[in-house]
Parts: sequence; C-alpha cells; structure tokens
Amino acid sequence: MAGLRGELEALLDAVKRGEVAPAEALERLAELPYRDLGFAMVDVHRELRQGAPEAVLAEGKTPAQVAAIVGALLEGGAGSVLVTRAGEETRAAVRAAAPGAREDERARAVWVARSLPEPVGLVVLLSAGTSDGPVLHEARIRAELLGAGSAVHEDVGVAGIHRLAAVLPDLARADCVVVAAGMDAALASVVGGLAACPVIGVPTSVGYGSADGGRTALNAMLCSCAAGLAVVGIDDGFGAGTIAARIARAAGGAR
Amino acid sequence: MAGLRGELEALLDAVKRGEVAPAEALERLAELPYRDLGFAMVDVHRELRQGAPEAVLAEGKTPAQVAAIVGALLEGGAGSVLVTRAGEETRAAVRAAAPGAREDERARAVWVARSLPEPVGLVVLLSAGTSDGPVLHEARIRAELLGAGSAVHEDVGVAGIHRLAAVLPDLARADCVVVAAGMDAALASVVGGLAACPVIGVPTSVGYGSADGGRTALNAMLCSCAAGLAVVGIDDGFGAGTIAARIARAAGGAR
Amino acid sequence: MAGLRGELEALLDAVKRGEVAPAEALERLAELPYRDLGFAMVDVHRELRQGAPEAVLAEGKTPAQVAAIVGALLEGGAGSVLVTRAGEETRAAVRAAAPGAREDERARAVWVARSLPEPVGLVVLLSAGTSDGPVLHEARIRAELLGAGSAVHEDVGVAGIHRLAAVLPDLARADCVVVAAGMDAALASVVGGLAACPVIGVPTSVGYGSADGGRTALNAMLCSCAAGLAVVGIDDGFGAGTIAARIARAAGGAR
Amino acid sequence: MAGLRGELEALLDAVKRGEVAPAEALERLAELPYRDLGFAMVDVHRELRQGAPEAVLAEGKTPAQVAAIVGALLEGGAGSVLVTRAGEETRAAVRAAAPGAREDERARAVWVARSLPEPVGLVVLLSAGTSDGPVLHEARIRAELLGAGSAVHEDVGVAGIHRLAAVLPDLARADCVVVAAGMDAALASVVGGLAACPVIGVPTSVGYGSADGGRTALNAMLCSCAAGLAVVGIDDGFGAGTIAARIARAAGGAR
Amino acid sequence: MAGLRGELEALLDAVKRGEVAPAEALERLAELPYRDLGFAMVDVHRELRQGAPEAVLAEGKTPAQVAAIVGALLEGGAGSVLVTRAGEETRAAVRAAAPGAREDERARAVWVARSLPEPVGLVVLLSAGTSDGPVLHEARIRAELLGAGSAVHEDVGVAGIHRLAAVLPDLARADCVVVAAGMDAALASVVGGLAACPVIGVPTSVGYGSADGGRTALNAMLCSCAAGLAVVGIDDGFGAGTIAARIARAAGGAR
Amino acid sequence: MAGLRGELEALLDAVKRGEVAPAEALERLAELPYRDLGFAMVDVHRELRQGAPEAVLAEGKTPAQVAAIVGALLEGGAGSVLVTRAGEETRAAVRAAAPGAREDERARAVWVARSLPEPVGLVVLLSAGTSDGPVLHEARIRAELLGAGSAVHEDVGVAGIHRLAAVLPDLARADCVVVAAGMDAALASVVGGLAACPVIGVPTSVGYGSADGGRTALNAMLCSCAAGLAVVGIDDGFGAGTIAARIARAAGGAR
Amino acid sequence: MAGLRGELEALLDAVKRGEVAPAEALERLAELPYRDLGFAMVDVHRELRQGAPEAVLAEGKTPAQVAAIVGALLEGGAGSVLVTRAGEETRAAVRAAAPGAREDERARAVWVARSLPEPVGLVVLLSAGTSDGPVLHEARIRAELLGAGSAVHEDVGVAGIHRLAAVLPDLARADCVVVAAGMDAALASVVGGLAACPVIGVPTSVGYGSADGGRTALNAMLCSCAAGLAVVGIDDGFGAGTIAARIARAAGGAR
Amino acid sequence: MAGLRGELEALLDAVKRGEVAPAEALERLAELPYRDLGFAMVDVHRELRQGAPEAVLAEGKTPAQVAAIVGALLEGGAGSVLVTRAGEETRAAVRAAAPGAREDERARAVWVARSLPEPVGLVVLLSAGTSDGPVLHEARIRAELLGAGSAVHEDVGVAGIHRLAAVLPDLARADCVVVAAGMDAALASVVGGLAACPVIGVPTSVGYGSADGGRTALNAMLCSCAAGLAVVGIDDGFGAGTIAARIARAAGGAR
Repeated sequence: MAGLRGELEALLDAVKRGEVAPAEALERLAELPYRDLGFAMVDVHRELRQGAPEAVLAEGKTPAQVAAIVGALLEGGAGSVLVTRAGEETRAAVRAAAPGAREDERARAVWVARSLPEPVGLVVLLSAGTSDGPVLHEARIRAELLGAGSAVHEDVGVAGIHRLAAVLPDLARADCVVVAAGMDAALASVVGGLAACPVIGVPTSVGYGSADGGRTALNAMLCSCAAGLAVVGIDDGFGAGTIAARIARAAGGAR
Repeated sequence: MAGLRGELEALLDAVKRGEVAPAEALERLAELPYRDLGFAMVDVHRELRQGAPEAVLAEGKTPAQVAAIVGALLEGGAGSVLVTRAGEETRAAVRAAAPGAREDERARAVWVARSLPEPVGLVVLLSAGTSDGPVLHEARIRAELLGAGSAVHEDVGVAGIHRLAAVLPDLARADCVVVAAGMDAALASVVGGLAACPVIGVPTSVGYGSADGGRTALNAMLCSCAAGLAVVGIDDGFGAGTIAARIARAAGGAR
Repeated sequence: MAGLRGELEALLDAVKRGEVAPAEALERLAELPYRDLGFAMVDVHRELRQGAPEAVLAEGKTPAQVAAIVGALLEGGAGSVLVTRAGEETRAAVRAAAPGAREDERARAVWVARSLPEPVGLVVLLSAGTSDGPVLHEARIRAELLGAGSAVHEDVGVAGIHRLAAVLPDLARADCVVVAAGMDAALASVVGGLAACPVIGVPTSVGYGSADGGRTALNAMLCSCAAGLAVVGIDDGFGAGTIAARIARAAGGAR
Repeated sequence: MAGLRGELEALLDAVKRGEVAPAEALERLAELPYRDLGFAMVDVHRELRQGAPEAVLAEGKTPAQVAAIVGALLEGGAGSVLVTRAGEETRAAVRAAAPGAREDERARAVWVARSLPEPVGLVVLLSAGTSDGPVLHEARIRAELLGAGSAVHEDVGVAGIHRLAAVLPDLARADCVVVAAGMDAALASVVGGLAACPVIGVPTSVGYGSADGGRTALNAMLCSCAAGLAVVGIDDGFGAGTIAARIARAAGGAR
Repeated sequence: MAGLRGELEALLDAVKRGEVAPAEALERLAELPYRDLGFAMVDVHRELRQGAPEAVLAEGKTPAQVAAIVGALLEGGAGSVLVTRAGEETRAAVRAAAPGAREDERARAVWVARSLPEPVGLVVLLSAGTSDGPVLHEARIRAELLGAGSAVHEDVGVAGIHRLAAVLPDLARADCVVVAAGMDAALASVVGGLAACPVIGVPTSVGYGSADGGRTALNAMLCSCAAGLAVVGIDDGFGAGTIAARIARAAGGAR
Repeated sequence: MAGLRGELEALLDAVKRGEVAPAEALERLAELPYRDLGFAMVDVHRELRQGAPEAVLAEGKTPAQVAAIVGALLEGGAGSVLVTRAGEETRAAVRAAAPGAREDERARAVWVARSLPEPVGLVVLLSAGTSDGPVLHEARIRAELLGAGSAVHEDVGVAGIHRLAAVLPDLARADCVVVAAGMDAALASVVGGLAACPVIGVPTSVGYGSADGGRTALNAMLCSCAAGLAVVGIDDGFGAGTIAARIARAAGGAR
Repeated sequence: MAGLRGELEALLDAVKRGEVAPAEALERLAELPYRDLGFAMVDVHRELRQGAPEAVLAEGKTPAQVAAIVGALLEGGAGSVLVTRAGEETRAAVRAAAPGAREDERARAVWVARSLPEPVGLVVLLSAGTSDGPVLHEARIRAELLGAGSAVHEDVGVAGIHRLAAVLPDLARADCVVVAAGMDAALASVVGGLAACPVIGVPTSVGYGSADGGRTALNAMLCSCAAGLAVVGIDDGFGAGTIAARIARAAGGAR
Repeated sequence: MAGLRGELEALLDAVKRGEVAPAEALERLAELPYRDLGFAMVDVHRELRQGAPEAVLAEGKTPAQVAAIVGALLEGGAGSVLVTRAGEETRAAVRAAAPGAREDERARAVWVARSLPEPVGLVVLLSAGTSDGPVLHEARIRAELLGAGSAVHEDVGVAGIHRLAAVLPDLARADCVVVAAGMDAALASVVGGLAACPVIGVPTSVGYGSADGGRTALNAMLCSCAAGLAVVGIDDGFGAGTIAARIARAAGGAR
C-alpha cells in the first residue's frame, strides 16, 4: 500500500528545498524499480526505502501469495512488513517464510520488524467495548511500526463515566487519540468533546441488527458535533494507525 | 388516530373486572358510531369518549379537510383535539373553525383543549440543540394534553458536560424522559446512562449530509447500550409525547 | 452494560432529596472502583451495587473472556449476571465458571441469579410467530431478573383474530406489553391499538427477502399509527426487557 | 402504455382457437401501424383497438406534449384515454384539446371516455387514511375505464376495528380488493386476512421520517403473511386499477 | 398462516347472504378453537376447515417444532398441509411424522394432501432461468394444493425470442401467469406486455453483485410499464401460488 | 473535463511510435499551460488542442462562472465547447458571451462549435419513453461534437414489439447503440439481445416511487443478461455520448 | 446467455444488405430449434451458430445441471462453451463430461474451445490489486474466446505512479481497456484520464466495511469525470470481456 | 459547538502538570456558567474562554435566533464567532447585530473575529472542482479563525496531471492537507498517495444521479488505499477546518 512513501518524502523534501523541480519529481517516480510476481507488482527499491513500513492486506489473497509478497518486500530491503486481516493459515505461511515474524491473533496481524523508526509522539487508543479489541490492536501495531508511542485503554464505554475518568490523564498528554467503537459510537463524541488533540474515529462492525455492520457507528461519528474528529473506514484499524502516527510524530517534532 | 382509546380503556377495564367477556368486548367495538365525511371516517361517540384526546395529522390533507375533521370531532364531544404538522394556512383554518383553538408556530401545532385530565406524573423533555425544538414541543404539547406534567430543557448538547449538570435535578424527579436529538444523537446515550426512569428517544431530521434525514440518529439510538431507552419514528414528537405521558401517568399512580 | 445503575440511582435519589449537589454527584462517579481485566473494565463496587442486575453481550467475545467477566462481576458482588447472545460453547464456559448458572438454549442466554428484587408490575410479552421466540424469551428473562412479573403468549399472529382474543385479558391487566414481530410487524400496530398501557415493539430479523433482516419490521413499527408504541433495536430482546421492566415496576408502585 | 392490448388479445384469442400460428402472431405484430410525433410513437391502429383504454403518464412531459399524444390517440380511435399524474396546467391543456374530457383534481387525472366496456365484476377500494385518497381514486378511475364496477371506502385505518366492520359486507361481495396505505400499511395485512378474493396492495408515499417515501409500506406489504395479497409500485394507483379490473372482470365472467 | 380461511369464507358467505350480521361475524371469530403447543398456537377447528389448505414456514423453526405443528394440523382435520423452505432434516421429520407426506427437494417443500379441491382454472408458471426453479416450483405446488391447474415453462429468458414463442399458446389459455425472475427481471415486463390475464411477478434472489439479493428484480417489476402486473415478496413462491390460484379459480368460475 | 485529451492522444501516439519514452510523456504533461480563473483552472494550450471538444458541467456553478470558463476555453482555441445541465439563465449567459452559441432547451445544453471533426461511424440512440428525451439528446449532441454520426428513435418502449421492428434496420447498421431508459429499463435488455454492436445504457431518473431516482433502472441494466451492454451513470447522457462516439469512430476506422 | 447471437448477426446482416425484411427477421427467430432439458431450454441450432461462443452461469445450478447444459450445447455444435462462477465440483463435472475442457481455478472458470474466431484487436486488462485477479481473468478468458487479443497487468494500483508508467505503452496500443477495481476504484478514473480508447470498468466486491460489497467501487466509477468510461455489474468479468471484445474487434476491423 | 474547549484545554493542561486531579477536573466543569436564552444554552464564561473560537450552525434556526446566540457569545467575551450554512437573511441579521462581522457569500459564512490566535502551521486546501468551492472555503475560514495558515488551490481535478503538478510545492510544505471532492473523489486518493502529511477528506454533495448526494464520494474516500487519509461528514467544511487546524498547529509547534 505505502511502498512509495520513502521516495515521495525524499523527493518532496527536495522539492521543498528547491533542489528538484516539480516536473522532474514526477519523472523520477516513473523510473523506480519494482518486482513483478505475476499476480502482484512489488516495490523493491532498496536504498531509498530503507526503514519504510510496508503493508499487505491478506484478505482476498491466498496464504502463498501473501508469503511471496512479504518475501519480495523483505528481499527488497523493507524495514518492516505488516500483514493485516490475516487468518491463521496466512499467519503461519508468513511465519514460515519470515522466521523473525511476530503475530497478534486477536488483531489477525503478523509482521516483521527489522528496523523501526525511533518512537516520537504519543497515540492514545481507546475502545468502547471488548469486542472492538481486534480493530484497536491493529491500529496500535500499525502506529508502533510507523514510529509512534502508544497507550491503550479497552472497554471504556460511555455508560460508566468513572471509567472515562481513568483515561483523562492519558487524554491530556496524547498527541492523537484513536477511538474504536461500534453500535452508536457515542464514545467518539464524548472523547471528541474532551480531548484537545485530533481524534481519529474507527467505526467497527461490532453489534447486530440496527448496528448494520458498522454503518450506524460510521454515520454517527461523521455527524458528531465534537470538534477535531475525523473518521476512517469501518474496521479500518490500519488506516487509523497510519494517520494517527503521522499526526503524533509531527506534533512530537519528528518531521 | 386515537379516537377509540376511550372506549377501549373502558372496555378493557370492564374485562379486567370480569364484567365483560373478551369476545363481547370485540363485538361491542363493532357497534360504535362514527361520522362519514366522505374523505374521512370520524369517531364521534360522545359519551364514552368524553375527555379523550383526539389528534389529526395535517400533512397530506387540505386545510379545509383538517378543519372539517376537527369540527366533527368537537361536535362528537372530544375533550381535546390536536392537529400536528400543520402549516400556517391549516392552523388558520382550524382557528377559524374552532375559535378557542391555540397554536404553537414553532411546533407547527394547533389544538383545542376543552377538558383535560388532571396532570399526573412528570415528563422531562430534553433537546440536543435549538433546531430540535419543533419536535420537542410537539411532544410536550401532546403529553400535556394527555394529562402529564412537563419540564423542558433545550439545547443540552453533549459537548458541554456542565449543561447536562443543570438538568440532573429534573432527571432525578422525572417519571419519563424524552430526548429529541438529530445527528449522532449521543445525548440519548448519555441521558440513557444517567436517568433511572424510562427514556424515549425521538430522532430528528436535523442536520445535513451524513445525518441522512434522521436515519443516523435513529440507528444510533437503537444501537445505544444505554439501559431503558426505546425510540419512536423520526421527527415523531407526537408519538413520543403519547407514550411518555402514559408511562409518567402510570408511574404517578394515575391508572 | 448497566453496572453503574445502582450507584446512579442512589446518587440521583440523594440529589432528589437535596442531600447531594449535582456537581458532587458527578465527582463521586469518578471515584468508583472497577477491575481491569486487560480486555475489559469491570465494575466491582460491591456495596452500592448489591442486587443490581449485570449483563454481558457474548457476541464478539471469546467464551473465556465472557467467563472471566462473569467471574469478576460475581466476585464484585453482583446480585445477578445475564449473558446474552451466547452460543453453546459460551454458555458451557459460564456454567463451568459459575456452577449455579441457569441457561435457556432457545434464548441463547445464560445467567446467575443470586438475589433478585421482589417482582412488581406485570410485563405481558407477545410474539407474532414461533420463530420470534428467542427474542421474546430474552426479553422475558431480562425483565424477570430486573424484578418484573411476566406473562408470555407466543405465535399470536394477526391472521387469526380469535388468537388475539385469548390475550385480551392479559392485555387488560398488563403494566407494559412487549411485542416481538418480524416481517410486516402488523401485530405491533394491532396490539398498539388495543392496549391501554405502553407497548414496546421489538422488530425481529425473522423472515427472508423483503423482510430485509428486520428492517421492514423496524420501519413498520416506527410508522405505526398505534398510540403508545415505542421500539428498540432489531432482535434486541434485552433492551425491550429492560425498559419494559422499568415501566412496569414504576406503574406497579416500585419506585 | 397499453396500446397493443387490443391487438394482442385478438391475436392471442386467434392463437387459442388454433386459427393463427404463434410465429405468425409475432410477425403480425411487427406490421401494426403507429404515428410518429417525433418525441413519441403513438399507436393509432383504429379497427383492432376500438374501445381499448389508452393511458398517458404526464409526469416528465410538457402539457403540450401530453395534449398532442392524447389528440393522436383519439384520432386513432381510442375508446378512452386516461392521463395520470397530471398537474393543473396539463389537465387544462388536455381539456382544451379534448372538449369532452373530465378530470379529478384530487387524483390528478384527466380522461376522455368515448366508449367504455360494460361494467363486469366488482373492485372494492379501501384507503387507510384520507391522505391516501389521490392514489385510491386514480385506481378507481382506471378500473372503471377498464370496465369494472367499483365501491370505495376511505380512511378505514386499523386503529378502529368498528370502521373495518362497515366494509365487511363489501368485502364479502368483492371480486378484487385494492388497499391503498402508507406508513406501516397494516390495513393490507388485516384486509388480506379477511378477504376471500385477491387483494392488491398499493403502498403510498404518505407519511414522513421512517415512512421513507413509501418504502416502508411497500416492504411491509411484501412481507405480510396475509394470503392472497400482491403489490404494485409505490403510489401506482394506475397499476392497481389495471390488474384489479382484469381480475374482477374475469371473476365476473367477462373473459 | 391461512388457518382461518375456511371459517372466514363461510362467515363472509353468510354475511353476503344476509344470514349473519357483520358484528356477529367478528364475534364468532373470537370463539374458534385452537390448540396451544406452547411455542405455537395451532388452529384445529375441524368441521369448518375441512379441505382448507394449511401452510407452515419452516425457516426459524426446529424440525421437531415443524413436525409437531404439522401433526396438530392434521389431527385438526386439515385437508392438506404444506411446509415451505424446509431443509432436508425438516422434510425428514415431517415425513416421519406424516407417512403419506410427499416432498420436492428442489422447491424445499414437503406436504400432505389428504383431500384437495377439484382443480379449476389454469395457472401458467414461467421462470427466466434454471436457477429460479426452486421458487417457481414452490408456487406451483401451492397453487395445485389450492385447487388450480398448472403448466410450467422453465428457463424462458428474454435473450431468445423463439423460446418465448413456445409459451405463447399457454399464455393464450392462462387464467393467471406467474413469472419468477431475478437479475433485471425483464421477462416480467415482456410477459406482462403479452398476456391478457393478470400476471404475478416473483422476484428471486438469483444473481450476484448488482442483483442485490433480489431487490433489483423486485424494483424492476414494480416499475414495469406492463399492464396487469402485480408482485409478491422476494423468493415468495408461496405467496405467488396463493394469489394466482385464487385468481385462476375465480376466472374459471369456481367461486 | 476532457481538456487534456488532445495532448494525451498526441503523446500516446508518440509513445506508440517509439518516439517518446513513457517517462518523458509524464514529464511533458507537467509542463502544459493552463489559465487560472481563481475558482477554476482552465486548459488553454492552443496548438495541441485545436479541434478538441471541451465540456463544462453547469450545475453548481453560477452563470457568470460558466460564461467565464467558456470564454477562456474559446480564447484558448478550443474547437468546440459544450455546456451541460445548463438552466435558462446559464444558457443566456453563454449565448451572450459567445454569440455563435447554439442551444437545446430540452437537453438543457448550450454549445459553441467552431471546428468539428469529420463524422465517422454511426451511433444509434434510443429512448424508452418521451420523458427520457433530455438525456438522450444530451448524448446525441455530445456524440456529434465528438465527430460521430447519429440516428435517434424516441419512445420505443418494450410494450409494443412493432415499434421495435421500426428500429431494426438502424440497429443493423449501428456501430454503437445508446439506450436511455428509466423505470425497469427493460428496453436495454431487449436491445442488448438484438444488437450485434456494443450497447451503452443510460439509466434515467424518470418515474416515481419504486423507480427510486433511476437506481432501479441502473441496477436492472447492470444485471441484464444481454451480451455487450455497459452502463454510465444515472442521467449521464454526456458520458454515454462520449464513449459511444469513441466506439463508433474506431469501428468506422477513424483511429 | 448468448446463444442467439449467431443467428441474430446473420439475420441483421441480411437486413442490412436488404435481403430480409425486418418483420421476416422476427418471424424467423421464432422458428429456431432448441433442446428442452426440463430445467433448461438449450439452443442447439447447429449450422448458423457454428463458432459462436456459448456461456453458462454455474451459480444456482447443480454440477449435474451445468454438465448437462454444456453437453447439449456441444452436441448442438457450439464452437466454444464457457462456464463461469464454477466451484471445484462443477468444474470437475464439466471436465468429466467434456474431456477437452480447460479450467482456471482462480477465475472459477471452465471452458471448451473447439473452434475460436481469429483474434482481432487488443483488449488491455488492468487490475488495481491482486485480489481483483479472479474477475480480471474471467474477463480475459471471455474476451479471448470471443476472438480478441489480450494483455494483462495486475496490481497496478494508484498509489504507485511508476507502476502506471509500465502500462502506458500497452494503453497506447489498446483498442479497449478493462479496469477491474474494488474499494474506491480510483484506478478507473486515472486510466480513464490516460487512455484514448473506450474503457470498461468492472467494480469488484474486494474489500470490507465501507467497500460495501462493491457498491462503492460501482458508484465511484459511475461518477468518474474520466471521459470514455462505461461500467458493467459488480464482479461481472464476463460482461466486461464481452463488450470489450466487441469494441476491440470492431476497432480492429473485424466486423 | 465548541464553547467548552478553552476550559477543557486549561483543565487538561493542569491535569497534565499534575496540578488538578482528574475527578476534580470533571467537577469543575459542572460549575461553569452559561446563559439560557430559552431556545439555546450559551456558554458565556468570559475569563477562561478569552480568544476561543465559537461557532453556530445556522441551519434549522431562525435569523433572529442566530443573531441572539451570536450576541450572547460576544457579550460573553468570545474571541471569534463563526456562523456556518447561513443564508442571506441570516448573514444580514448577524451583520446587523455585530457591526464588525465579515461574510463570505460563496461559503455561506458570516463571522466576527475580535482576537485571533497567532497563525501557526500550514493547511493546504484543494478542491476537485469549482462546485466544491463553498465547502472548501468554509474549511479555510474555520482553519484561519483557529489560528492556522492556509493556502488554497481550486479545481485541481485528476483528469489533468499537470494541474496537480502546480500544487506539489504546496503539498511539500503543508502540515495538513484538506481535499474537498464530490463524485468519485479520486482526488483524495491521488493526493493521499502524494502528501507526506495527514490528509483530511471532505466529501461534497456535488454531482447528480450516482453521486447520491455525496455518499459515493464519502465511501470512496473511506475505501481509499492512500495512507494517512481520514474523513469528515458530507459537506462538513467546518469539521475539516477544525481538525486540520489542530493538526497543523501541533505540527508547527503551537501546543
């Protein structure tokens, strides 16, 4: 998904410093190497991308395909590779192909971390209920691989105000907050009304009937009057972790 | 809408006391009189219905039709008649036909109250924002005509916890709470977590875009984890007032 | 879900009596203890909550997680704990962890009832068809654990008026009626036109095709002209039982 | 819409009697004349179609276009022409172009009836409320022009069982029943449970919020357990009148 | 579903003949006997209902429940009992409970036919494709049990006009046509333009992606300009067979 | 919308001939001139784009904005400019700004044609009904400006097979067919089954109720079994004209 | 699906040459032979259809039904038969029935190719990601069987501009481009902005949550401003391959 | 909406520094003053909130109500007040009530800026087309009032790559990018693939038919594979400006 980030940042920095003209930047992009696996085109440009986090969405791919892509990315020199929405079989295939891989069964994630950026900034991650855990931890793993610090509070709910009180100190020191919530997603509105930093909502497909597979949570978050709240797709912990890490690292002075 | 209520309650009370057999109750219902206006069949059974609240939904009817129905209901001896969703022209037609009629422009309501039940129980009505006012006041008027006491707090929001604090004393003494809220309707969840009595949510069509004409508020309320919350249709202040009055009157010992 | 209810009621009563200022009430809530299981924050404040009904939604949690939460709640002194939408494996895990637990396979519920409130008021529960039974019984169990009396009539339908006649005596003595119905949910409208007490509709996901997973029943109930009808989420027997018990207990003079 | 009906019936009768081979029937259809107005192709085959009812949907056409189509149909010898969903301006244009035209403002219909079939069979038309009247009368006019008898009961509702009793005698002698209802459309289910003849439901877009422009009524009718119920499109009184007349006429022995 | 039909028809006939007053008819209905199985209330009034077709929707009921209901209906004297949407296990349970039962695996139906009405009228049943067969045959079985003649043409499509030609002779002699079609359901429009008798469309959930579980076929049928077309719910072969048999029998002079 | 087409085609041709490397092609694109109007960036590269058709969507822009954009495009040397979905006021503003402009009120289009390509290939455009005319003519005008021949048949319907026969000769010589149809869009399926060339369906928002603003027509077209059918957006005559002209011109040997 | 194509083309060519009158063409179609398998009507007219591609949608049919249909088509002389959406069991049944059959597991396709047309024109097929492969290859196989050349690029994405550069040379020589993409389908817009030939988008159901089973990709493609883009149904690789082959072959001079 | 922000930030800072306990923070919030206008509760706590930006959504409120709220906020000492979605009449009422007010007709905004924070950080705002301007400028005004620098590029599109090139230098120096786009919103994906900082997408309701009032743009953005993209509600420029300003100010070192 994000294999070009390294080059882009380098190029855009060069554009910023006036060293490279915009048109030249576009041209250079067209000359970057990649590796063609037949069913996938994998970026493997080693030098520029050293340390850049790579990611693979396992859903819709066979375990063998995922393992091959991970292998190609590692050969290409990726600092880390994260595989999301990976069932047990896929996780096993990746672990077999990349012996140093670690996994989180609940988050359905498996990853290889060879060289990570120094953690900068703090992402605080909250879930409304225990069942939102898989999405929350996907976001956490992603944010950590991108070089952000993290703090997690699960099952915060809104029915119990005293449980919210326990997270106030962390809200006060957060550079970005991620809220994973399904159903009516009221936690996002409440936290959005308390946090002074940007809040990223992740609607989850937790719940039945009127929860409508996460659409209710999504729409409720989008309608929230809480200031400073933006939203990623349903169950998209990966996306939440990505933008949260960027926000937190920049606020922490990383960029 | 509710013209049979009086008879039904009388009959069901009789069934309760063992004075009337269930089958006989059904039979009697089939003999009740009504008045045929051509475009509407109006219940006008005077004796049984004395004091019962009648209601007319103006939308989809011409001002003349509404005025004629109101006239027939009053001739039939209705204790009160409430016309909802009535535009200015319709309200004028009703006022012309029934000189004692009162109206509430914001709630788009006009009504005649000849003999109301003694107020019993307390309905506390809250709105999330100023724009929810029309729906909230429709609920209030309906509840009052049905014989419930009322207390109103508008624009409570959820972003400002201290505004919620102001309503805590009323929540503590309420027999039923009505919450009118659009957008993410988070107020319903928060109040549902605070009130010890039943809470009736009225999703409103306030808001644009992702508010989706009130569907988001509706679904969010239906998904809420708050205990003791049930919901009526979008913008249906009338329905909320009806059930809230019933709940409050029964809790107040009226039944 | 409802672990704070006990404290809230106590606090709100104190507010009502003027013994506690609203602001102090909010402050106190922030000091209540809970137990952190890592994946769940469980309220375990023993004294205040004695006798309060606790509930756990099993869906989305592993059997081990559910059993651990139930264990923590019981250790915390909960008077009862109800687990809903629990598959066979989860029910077994709870029964193993809490030997006194009882279960209802059809309602997919398992619960521990150590000390229940004295039953007050009557909730009459009706289903349109046999297939609505699981939802109906979830509502019944919840209402009973909350301290309401109950009477159940299944498969009432609307095609057979004489089957409705059989429930008229119970409708006449009900403090609250719960109607579980899928498809066109016409039973809710018909009962709403007969009952003099509040009616809580539970749309069910029974049916195929145009039943649309319960959305048709939900919308039909919300549109009903029947007076005194409010609705909970699709298949949400738990929510229906909660508000119905509150209504019935208050009408019965419990509060 | 239905200009080919006359020929088709004649041809199919000939096929039935063995006088025309199926393939020849198809061939003949390709040789029927029509009149090209540029923006519309109008069937004007006089002899075969004598007495056949023609219809024009005014919506989306200018008054002048509608008047021109009506004129061409009448020149072509149509026994009757019905224009539906016609605003005031269109109705005036048709009346100007066809002096003998009659109109029904409430049904938004204007029509010319030069030679109608002898009425056979009885269509009974019921509406749930006054606001369903326009759709109901569109159905009635269409059925009458097609040669069916009609009986109308408006504002039958379901809240008042005694109003239903008034229509029982007509239900007992009906050959087909049309039920126009919006909101939850419960009347269709109740009537479908009472009538022994086929019932055609017409969902109407009456109501607001959760009525969803008639979709709720449509889906509720489609989900009804009532036997012998089929449905036409939202607000499609025209379609309901068409099939109802066919059913009634055949049941009355017309075919 | 339809257990009251027998009595209703007898009562309505009596009302028609002036032998019974409408109110008395309603009263009598309330005295009809039924048998309470706990999870189901089964009509078992033997004399009036002799020969009336009974039906059970298996979906959402256990095989044992279905078998018990069938048994009670047969004990009550039902002339026939049809079980729809019955999986293999349910069909086996019914066959075991009712040795004379027959089944149709493709239509997922099992039924007992002890005494059927004499066939009157002709229902012609068409499917657009082979995959619509299960729904089509459910309609056929239902229509036959209700006493209508039947003729079936599967896989008629619209791409091949010459396949349509083969059904023209049957269209010409039909009293009612049933069209089962998924996807764009164009066959319903084409047949609706050819048949002179009423046409009942059954949208099916056949197809993927944009077929949207049958909603596209449903909406397309509802929008069709074809005259004389009405629609039942998605995959509701049962409902189509019911109304088609009524139409055909009346047209055939049965009533 | 399509201002870059000219350069792109020239560049891609050069790539094809091996005269320009792909990377260089991308680079060149970044150096093309445009004119910044503040609220719009207008391509005005004269030489390369001589003769290329430009287009402006008027909806959401003020008449003055549209006129300014048209003026800039003409100054930049555009061979033609087409403004779509232009109300009367906008069309007047364009005519005032560009005296040679022509307009089509029904299609809500206004355009300037200074130098058009030589017509190559034939696009045959069919509408199901008169009301689909505006969309059909927008497609026609667009196709003609792009250099395709056109033939139009309006109000073809599907109810009258003999009207279809009249278009068979044109279908036989078409290089591409455009079908504009709302409601059930059955015409697209029928034509798709007859035409040997590619067919482009344009669902229109014609119709009410179940037509659902064109969604039913859209989904029905997407589900059609007819071979060789693809679809553009609802009411998007412009898009249909664009791809149809490309298909027809290529088939006619233009490229 | 497309069995009549051969005859139609022959007939339409004859109409084009003036050798056959339109009405005669319709008549002839009604005399074509077919073979009735009971559950399917199979076209088997050998001479006219020699070389025409036949296709069967396996979904919703049993393996035995599919194999029987394939057998009948081959007996009827079909030049090729393609079975789509065929699971492993179905593919095995077809291979057993037709020994020369080939299959593509990823595309879930099995086919027999006895005599194919000479390849004319070039279809370039692009997928946004690896998971879109099955749909893409279904399109490719279909296009090849219809006699078009093909070139495939998988996993092109839009995040990596340099991967797009690699396909520019093929875009430059394409006669038609097929883009298979799920999620936001941005690749279709980008390619639509680069290709000078017609582009056919196939939205895929790849992705979770807000991807909404392909609806988001579908709607995004339909809304695209890119010129020359039309769309087929979700996951409908078959339909895309069909129209693409027609476009490419005509552009290549085949017709 | 955001009146509590000032206090919250002060309180949370105090919590952060360990000067205030979390529970005490909650308590203090309950003692903050506000001013009750009957229809609105307005925060007017002067000292803490000095300089804090206030906002009012005009939609659903009368001009007089809006003017009264603005007046109360200014009396309460608000540093700035922004009124969004304000029609001409409302803007006039505000200007009359607050002589120093400024307005932006296109953005439908009116505001008073008495004391703004020093600008820190850079928000770059892009629109896909001219019609997205109103939303884009609402976001810009909000961001500026919150103390962020801004740079605007309208009508960037995706069809013209060279227009994108013009914004590359600004993308390179942005701390946050806002993309306003309707239709398929492809610009968000493309920019998300180019920018190294967080990107906030605002789907707009621009477009017709399949644009579906902005839902297509919303879902496409949520599905985008572009890294670092989050989304606010449809047309919610206000929300986008809020979070963008927070992100940019923190990245610029403001916090």
